[in-house]
Amino acid sequence: MVLARTHLSIAIALAIPAHALAASPEPKASASRMEARIRALSQFGANPEGGVSRVAFSEADIAGREYVKGLMREAGLTVRVDTAGNLIGRREGREPSLPVILFGSHIDSVPGGGNYDGDVGVIGAIEVAQLLRDHGLETRHPLEVVSFTDEEGGLTGSLAMAGRLKVASLDASSHSGRTVRDGIRAVGGDPERLHLAERRPGDLRAFVELHVEQGGFLHQDGIQIGVVEGIVGIRGWEVVVEGVANHAGTTPMNGRKDALLSASELVLAVNRVASSRPGRQVATVGQIRAEPGAPNVIPGRVVMSLEIRDLAEAKIQQTFDAIAMEAQRIATARQTSIRFEESHEVAPAPTHPRMRQIIAAAAKDLGLTARLMPSGAGHDAQDLATITPTGMIFVPSVLGISHSPKEYTTAEDMARGASVLLRTVLAIDGGALD
Amino acid sequence: MVLARTHLSIAIALAIPAHALAASPEPKASASRMEARIRALSQFGANPEGGVSRVAFSEADIAGREYVKGLMREAGLTVRVDTAGNLIGRREGREPSLPVILFGSHIDSVPGGGNYDGDVGVIGAIEVAQLLRDHGLETRHPLEVVSFTDEEGGLTGSLAMAGRLKVASLDASSHSGRTVRDGIRAVGGDPERLHLAERRPGDLRAFVELHVEQGGFLHQDGIQIGVVEGIVGIRGWEVVVEGVANHAGTTPMNGRKDALLSASELVLAVNRVASSRPGRQVATVGQIRAEPGAPNVIPGRVVMSLEIRDLAEAKIQQTFDAIAMEAQRIATARQTSIRFEESHEVAPAPTHPRMRQIIAAAAKDLGLTARLMPSGAGHDAQDLATITPTGMIFVPSVLGISHSPKEYTTAEDMARGASVLLRTVLAIDGGALD
Repeated sequence: MVLARTHLSIAIALAIPAHALAASPEPKASASRMEARIRALSQFGANPEGGVSRVAFSEADIAGREYVKGLMREAGLTVRVDTAGNLIGRREGREPSLPVILFGSHIDSVPGGGNYDGDVGVIGAIEVAQLLRDHGLETRHPLEVVSFTDEEGGLTGSLAMAGRLKVASLDASSHSGRTVRDGIRAVGGDPERLHLAERRPGDLRAFVELHVEQGGFLHQDGIQIGVVEGIVGIRGWEVVVEGVANHAGTTPMNGRKDALLSASELVLAVNRVASSRPGRQVATVGQIRAEPGAPNVIPGRVVMSLEIRDLAEAKIQQTFDAIAMEAQRIATARQTSIRFEESHEVAPAPTHPRMRQIIAAAAKDLGLTARLMPSGAGHDAQDLATITPTGMIFVPSVLGISHSPKEYTTAEDMARGASVLLRTVLAIDGGALD
Repeated sequence: MVLARTHLSIAIALAIPAHALAASPEPKASASRMEARIRALSQFGANPEGGVSRVAFSEADIAGREYVKGLMREAGLTVRVDTAGNLIGRREGREPSLPVILFGSHIDSVPGGGNYDGDVGVIGAIEVAQLLRDHGLETRHPLEVVSFTDEEGGLTGSLAMAGRLKVASLDASSHSGRTVRDGIRAVGGDPERLHLAERRPGDLRAFVELHVEQGGFLHQDGIQIGVVEGIVGIRGWEVVVEGVANHAGTTPMNGRKDALLSASELVLAVNRVASSRPGRQVATVGQIRAEPGAPNVIPGRVVMSLEIRDLAEAKIQQTFDAIAMEAQRIATARQTSIRFEESHEVAPAPTHPRMRQIIAAAAKDLGLTARLMPSGAGHDAQDLATITPTGMIFVPSVLGISHSPKEYTTAEDMARGASVLLRTVLAIDGGALD
């Protein structure tokens, strides 16, 4: 089904205006240069497993940002740090009155992370700027390459740019040990004047993010480019199962109201519901705790997490409704109670339909195979999508491994992604979005 | 089946020697006096929910012991504290060379406990001494009423008396905040000379413990006295389920190796195996933890507890074997691994067969209904059983509630238990064990 929809969309994508792209083929990204830079960047916060633990606001993050600043300058960009700590390299266009075409990603990692998540997007964006400079190509629009602040900790930089960062987030402590407020200050931002980092209507023409897939679809099917339909929405619940705690020695098997039995049935039902319904929804129980939590006491209460993701809010709701119905059945059968308390919600962020077409066309023009697909993970792009037409380009993650030192994307795939990014930026500059 | 076995055993019990019991009926325990004393004892460490939090070695425990000492003296007993802190009230017999008949229980509680667990056995034992004194009844054997040290924390006093307390246990911290070593000192013991608390072969003729059932069998079926066949053995395991942790957003349902799915199936299998096989074995998963334990990460590892109890070691092994076979099937089907690491083992402690007959006959002589049954909970009796013929008398726990302020045993049932204890002690004194 995914494949069928992809083919349809790529066909549509061919209908972009002929004037939008230059007739002569633009330069191609250099796989060897990108790989060398990824390798150099991976020294900042290197962990013993071969990845990086370059959490936002850490000394490794600060040092890594300095390396990126140098690459930006090398590519002819004028570097600044906005008040949210976002690192920005600017290249002026021929028409100063036009809004900015923004592209980039992030270089901070999760603790125990790898060398590609975020990094490929930043190194790829710099590669685009480098190619434009090396080949003397000018654009009509000003271009800005961005490395966002603290993506992994909660999309801090992109939320600030979209004017959606909550004040409470500033007081949260980050993995670096610093609060987000102190962290922003440490990387050269000004947490008291975050409004200056906000981009207003008319400031931006578009945002494009190149990123590794983090899932295994592209690698598994040998597809080179993912055209992201949108970033899935997330709804999370705390699930509380109540039974009766009792002595594990003196309470016979048929006299138990064991909350963990109901919880276990529910874990299996969550998986069954999400797996058996048509669609790409995912549902996960990632946390579970039995109370009182002793080997010799029958659990009287179980608290667990439930998270459902899909590109469509209605699909999330339908999946939840089916799970809630199963829960009702389980609770009744086992003389326990099950209740759901919603804990968090992130709305789905569809990419701009025209942007999908432009990216798909760019891939096709470059002779690359492409597929339309949702992003199951969150990205800075979801915040930018609230203020400007936004697109995302995925490149394959080998075996779909993510947030691990074992994550890997080949140099060739990184370069293909950067070439698609360049062609996309030029298409937008040429009026493909107009 | 339980009922059938009980009837059979009571029939056997009638075959005890005729000379073992006095022809004239001995006095009966006073329900009102026992209840008043239980109520008075419940003031030491009273918790807001109506029970007690009289953990061993706490100020409440020390004060409660003083109250018990007073009751012992009131019953004509000579009070001493052995080096393990066990509180002992002695009544001499006519034949000083004979070994001691020991009976009693404990007055320490779990945190957030109730007013009957242990207390009924101590107050019942003192009631027996009181009746003997009030009615001028002499025995051939010396009698000792005991309130054991720190039963709930790990059977400290009875283990010391049986010469089985481990040195490492002395350094463990108790719920009182004191180490066991300091606690023993605080209640008047001498932790450097614990060997003096050991009872040697020939010191004891028998040990009898009156206790509340802590389960719901007697109350549910309207039976007045439980004749304990033995204290069940316990084997415990740490179960480790390994799958592959991955991103809960980017990993499709059919690409997951979710350790929590296998663990959930295993929790249900544990219950199914223990419930469906003939016998009274119980199996419990009381603890569970998913790792890394975030709502947005598919669990790569689950660690949980497994505990199996039965009166027969072979039954425990058979139950475990059946569970391990299920685990093998689940692990294979879900592409995960499951391994069991044994964490603790307590051998079953059968009571003395002749003692069961004596208790059953005592109940019958008093016109009480009785049932043979195992004890699913641990008791001081299991340690005494290693050094002397041991018996246990259960009285009903209303609704089977245990280790809770809501635990309750009626005054009449307490008195019935004490009357059976008196008759049992007199039967042993009369030679029923010989």
